[in-house]
Amino acid sequence: MSSNRVLNAAVLGATGTVGQRFIVLLSQNPMFKIHSLGASERSAGKPYAQATRWKMSEQMPENVRNIVVKSCDPALYEGCDVVFSGLDASVAGDVEKAFLESEFAVFSNAKNYRMAEDVPLCVPVVNTDHYAVVAAQRAARDKFGPISRVIVTTLQAVSGAGYPGVASLDILDNIVPLISGEEPKMEAEVLKILGGVSSDASVCSPLQDLRVSATCNRVPVVDGHTECVSLEFAGEPPSIDAIKQCLREYTCEAQDLGCFSAPAQVINVSEEEDRPQPRLDRNAGAGMSVTVGRIRPCPVFHVRFTLLVHNTILGAAGASILNAEYAAKKGYIV
Amino acid sequence: MSSNRVLNAAVLGATGTVGQRFIVLLSQNPMFKIHSLGASERSAGKPYAQATRWKMSEQMPENVRNIVVKSCDPALYEGCDVVFSGLDASVAGDVEKAFLESEFAVFSNAKNYRMAEDVPLCVPVVNTDHYAVVAAQRAARDKFGPISRVIVTTLQAVSGAGYPGVASLDILDNIVPLISGEEPKMEAEVLKILGGVSSDASVCSPLQDLRVSATCNRVPVVDGHTECVSLEFAGEPPSIDAIKQCLREYTCEAQDLGCFSAPAQVINVSEEEDRPQPRLDRNAGAGMSVTVGRIRPCPVFHVRFTLLVHNTILGAAGASILNAEYAAKKGYIV
Amino acid sequence: MSSNRVLNAAVLGATGTVGQRFIVLLSQNPMFKIHSLGASERSAGKPYAQATRWKMSEQMPENVRNIVVKSCDPALYEGCDVVFSGLDASVAGDVEKAFLESEFAVFSNAKNYRMAEDVPLCVPVVNTDHYAVVAAQRAARDKFGPISRVIVTTLQAVSGAGYPGVASLDILDNIVPLISGEEPKMEAEVLKILGGVSSDASVCSPLQDLRVSATCNRVPVVDGHTECVSLEFAGEPPSIDAIKQCLREYTCEAQDLGCFSAPAQVINVSEEEDRPQPRLDRNAGAGMSVTVGRIRPCPVFHVRFTLLVHNTILGAAGASILNAEYAAKKGYIV
Amino acid sequence: MSSNRVLNAAVLGATGTVGQRFIVLLSQNPMFKIHSLGASERSAGKPYAQATRWKMSEQMPENVRNIVVKSCDPALYEGCDVVFSGLDASVAGDVEKAFLESEFAVFSNAKNYRMAEDVPLCVPVVNTDHYAVVAAQRAARDKFGPISRVIVTTLQAVSGAGYPGVASLDILDNIVPLISGEEPKMEAEVLKILGGVSSDASVCSPLQDLRVSATCNRVPVVDGHTECVSLEFAGEPPSIDAIKQCLREYTCEAQDLGCFSAPAQVINVSEEEDRPQPRLDRNAGAGMSVTVGRIRPCPVFHVRFTLLVHNTILGAAGASILNAEYAAKKGYIV
Repeated sequence: MSSNRVLNAAVLGATGTVGQRFIVLLSQNPMFKIHSLGASERSAGKPYAQATRWKMSEQMPENVRNIVVKSCDPALYEGCDVVFSGLDASVAGDVEKAFLESEFAVFSNAKNYRMAEDVPLCVPVVNTDHYAVVAAQRAARDKFGPISRVIVTTLQAVSGAGYPGVASLDILDNIVPLISGEEPKMEAEVLKILGGVSSDASVCSPLQDLRVSATCNRVPVVDGHTECVSLEFAGEPPSIDAIKQCLREYTCEAQDLGCFSAPAQVINVSEEEDRPQPRLDRNAGAGMSVTVGRIRPCPVFHVRFTLLVHNTILGAAGASILNAEYAAKKGYIV
Repeated sequence: MSSNRVLNAAVLGATGTVGQRFIVLLSQNPMFKIHSLGASERSAGKPYAQATRWKMSEQMPENVRNIVVKSCDPALYEGCDVVFSGLDASVAGDVEKAFLESEFAVFSNAKNYRMAEDVPLCVPVVNTDHYAVVAAQRAARDKFGPISRVIVTTLQAVSGAGYPGVASLDILDNIVPLISGEEPKMEAEVLKILGGVSSDASVCSPLQDLRVSATCNRVPVVDGHTECVSLEFAGEPPSIDAIKQCLREYTCEAQDLGCFSAPAQVINVSEEEDRPQPRLDRNAGAGMSVTVGRIRPCPVFHVRFTLLVHNTILGAAGASILNAEYAAKKGYIV
Repeated sequence: MSSNRVLNAAVLGATGTVGQRFIVLLSQNPMFKIHSLGASERSAGKPYAQATRWKMSEQMPENVRNIVVKSCDPALYEGCDVVFSGLDASVAGDVEKAFLESEFAVFSNAKNYRMAEDVPLCVPVVNTDHYAVVAAQRAARDKFGPISRVIVTTLQAVSGAGYPGVASLDILDNIVPLISGEEPKMEAEVLKILGGVSSDASVCSPLQDLRVSATCNRVPVVDGHTECVSLEFAGEPPSIDAIKQCLREYTCEAQDLGCFSAPAQVINVSEEEDRPQPRLDRNAGAGMSVTVGRIRPCPVFHVRFTLLVHNTILGAAGASILNAEYAAKKGYIV
Repeated sequence: MSSNRVLNAAVLGATGTVGQRFIVLLSQNPMFKIHSLGASERSAGKPYAQATRWKMSEQMPENVRNIVVKSCDPALYEGCDVVFSGLDASVAGDVEKAFLESEFAVFSNAKNYRMAEDVPLCVPVVNTDHYAVVAAQRAARDKFGPISRVIVTTLQAVSGAGYPGVASLDILDNIVPLISGEEPKMEAEVLKILGGVSSDASVCSPLQDLRVSATCNRVPVVDGHTECVSLEFAGEPPSIDAIKQCLREYTCEAQDLGCFSAPAQVINVSEEEDRPQPRLDRNAGAGMSVTVGRIRPCPVFHVRFTLLVHNTILGAAGASILNAEYAAKKGYIV
């Protein structure tokens, strides 16, 4: 398939917050045209504008207002080249399976199949909402040898929990020191993302020798996850300047391929002492760049830093779209 | 001096937020009577109610409304047994020195002399706004051998910066990933607090073999500092249950002496998986207890947990008052 | 019945946020003893501590932890003298009716029967969460003749919506300019509260000649409703000073009867130009006082002012408890 | 002067938040080129990137980073066609006077000369941060006869107070019911904006017969002022539908002239019952549109509604820029 044809895209879970973000991003994307919108039976049959309580700060794109929402039955999605899933994990499992069995190319934010041995956790530029550690690890492994230990504490935005998600009584003038299931997910996913594939390319093989401790907090911030990271290298640690340069120079194949959603700069290294900050830095690179700041020696490990990622763009819908762009450019979507 | 006499107390910096907190706490304290209030030249000569923009959620105690504020000249404080300083660090140095030279017993929140070799960083029950790590360390050292490494990330309330302190534009829908000077202060103070004194009791000798890495963030919370801690023991680590029991059983001399401000329970160990939370737990023990929760194994070090402390009570004015109670009970205030 | 006997109290909806507030207040109240706790079938049969996710900043009273929660069947509440209902409006209708038919004295926060012709909207000291306008009206009517027109804009705290209530994504860095059903409720209730009773005392007769326009907003505040009010008097308006004095001198029968929950000062008149503020003033009078400030001439009507009321204490559970105290003192609870 | 020449613009107060907003907006504006940046003596002589703590969520435009900041002496601004002033009111008076005397065209946000008899409060599309009442009034006056009385309560964002502006301790979990000087300013300015000019065009003549009562609150919102308005017409009131249509059809000369900053839709009329909301609607029309919702009958006056305006764009820098565009198109800038 030529990578230049405009692809017809479906968005499943289109009325939810992740679905709404998909719609905002796709409506600005030259590679995709929104063709179909899927949601629950309750919404099916209604024009999108009527089925949806729009919660984005961008206005609802005119061209989706009158698209009639369908239920999530693959038989109804003929003509779609790509399916983006913003479904909630509680239903994503069965629905995505059905679409896969009908041979659709599915790009999902849901966590259901992320750790399945034969499902890749793709990283075209980016990966999860905890991306920069990964990029740092990759960059470091290539240049400085592997990282052996990571301790990370996150300060995560409420939009990560969807809508209605976090109750206001839980988060105004408050911190919630637990995000259920997030810590083991984060500790496991990073090993898979950084791992390899088996020699016959049939299964993923996670890293074995990296130890990660993640503590995840919910904070009263709308968008943008902040992470405070301390790293230990297995061997001789590089200098702080070498690390900064390595992060600044980090590029990815999606950029080289000219993918629309790939940011000009994958990792912004900030030299200002009080950055990154979610309200000021989350929209860097249209929400597709990571900002890393406060890179400095760690008195316990080798280096520590603070990173910021826009959790609903780079950490969710934006990454799925870039994955799809990458897959199309590479000819994986037939 | 008998410990049962009511002591006349002066509050320096009485119009500021720390000073206001001193006044609220002292007005409920049977051991002290507010005798004198000191502030800047601008306030001197005015009745307290007029000189002050009251910012506490408790009402201004009636009996201080008409006390005429004095300037901070020791000659004006005759009759005071104890001097509490809520002065800003920018002026605390000279003023506190003058009071000391006039032989007043000064209990200060200011950081100016904290690391001076001949000034104790006293811990009657408590110490600084980063107390529980200290208590955990002490408890652990006594029971399980020393802690070798600590990595801590803090989420600190805005009241820690005084008034006006943090600008609302910096903290609404935002995190500030730097608190200027806080990280080295925290990393150094913990060593002094846990250290010993020289054999002739003339100087403090900080711990040498504990390594601490602190990353400090400002978060949109009014009161209550949250800290996410990972610990490594030098030797064989105790079980999680042993650690919990050790923290629960932790007591201090100030409790035994019956100090009014000593909490019934120094450390509350929470078994709820999403606690401590600043809005819900900061007032435990009238703000003088620490709450520790999420005590669990750390995949990188031995144990990790989250703790909460009321930064302007246990972490500031309350600790100074308890120090003074303790000193009086022990006969150190003559 | 003697008013000095301790009354056995039941709390329905005990696991919700209004129910939790009832429990905190009743546990400090000398007139009532918590005897029974009622909630949904899902909670029935479990000890209270296990059935409840405690969300108060006060700790759960020890003596309720082990009370086994019952379902809301009147047959199970033998021995209860008073029933407090913190039930949600969706179930309060049927349940409260059943308790009334079983001849329990029910004090409810739910709105279901508030406007029924034969149900009083009682005002011992206080009434609804929009109390001070009422008190001002009553005070003014007595002293200055009736008020003819009121325009009020509210800024209401999220706790008014219960738990989970307002989603954090709706209120962080935001205002919601609608509280569904609140404006007509407020406009109608004030007429009933200020109205009279028919000559045979069988039905309430709302005021006819007062016009009220209420606009209700939800704001990112945890507790405390703020209201900006402009008033027009039917006749010659009193001076600003006369209004202030009238509000300051306002007392109620519940105070005279020595009801435990009646505040010393029903209405605090603040002379500070930037008060009342919810965080600083909501706890005045243990949450049972109203604070009124910024009383000044209105260029359009006669007078305007800003008032603050603690919506979950004076505006909800506290008012019900005071109603019950008042009813008991007056011998209405047999 | 041809309106198509790119004009050289200076920004005074360039390092402050209003100045930063000017720079963001001007860098995207085809009509102006940033030529000079002025600030206090402390900043003068430094490259802009070094002199400024950048607080915008947009990145600092590359082409201003190296512009050397000047002091605010008109002699240094040769070659500038237009001067935008984001100066603080404390210094704007003298500086703007000096620039005017040197015959610069000055477009200012400062309030110093707003009420001077010979200074117009220009309204190309928009006017102040309380614009929609004005537009409604104008639209209504033209179509329905004049408005006689307005009662408005505002919920204003913290960015309106500049930086550092509102202290976080004053606004987290809180409302501040006073914005010093704002109410009389608002009550007076609306009369001037809606007024006429004398027959010889030498002085402005404010409206005489409109009465306005404004109550202004600060709320924990970053950007976007919300206003709750009740209006009375002098004569027969129009229907709600007629009002909506009138607002929707409202256009202005700046649109007709094709000014770059004029929004496509001056007033967005929302039919959703819970809009406008600051976080969702402030960026409508790139921050240059007003959103009006909840238009409904008022039980006291004739109509009431809620409006939202982006206070630092339409309410400040954006309005000044549009004023300058309009003036240039009309040939007022020579």
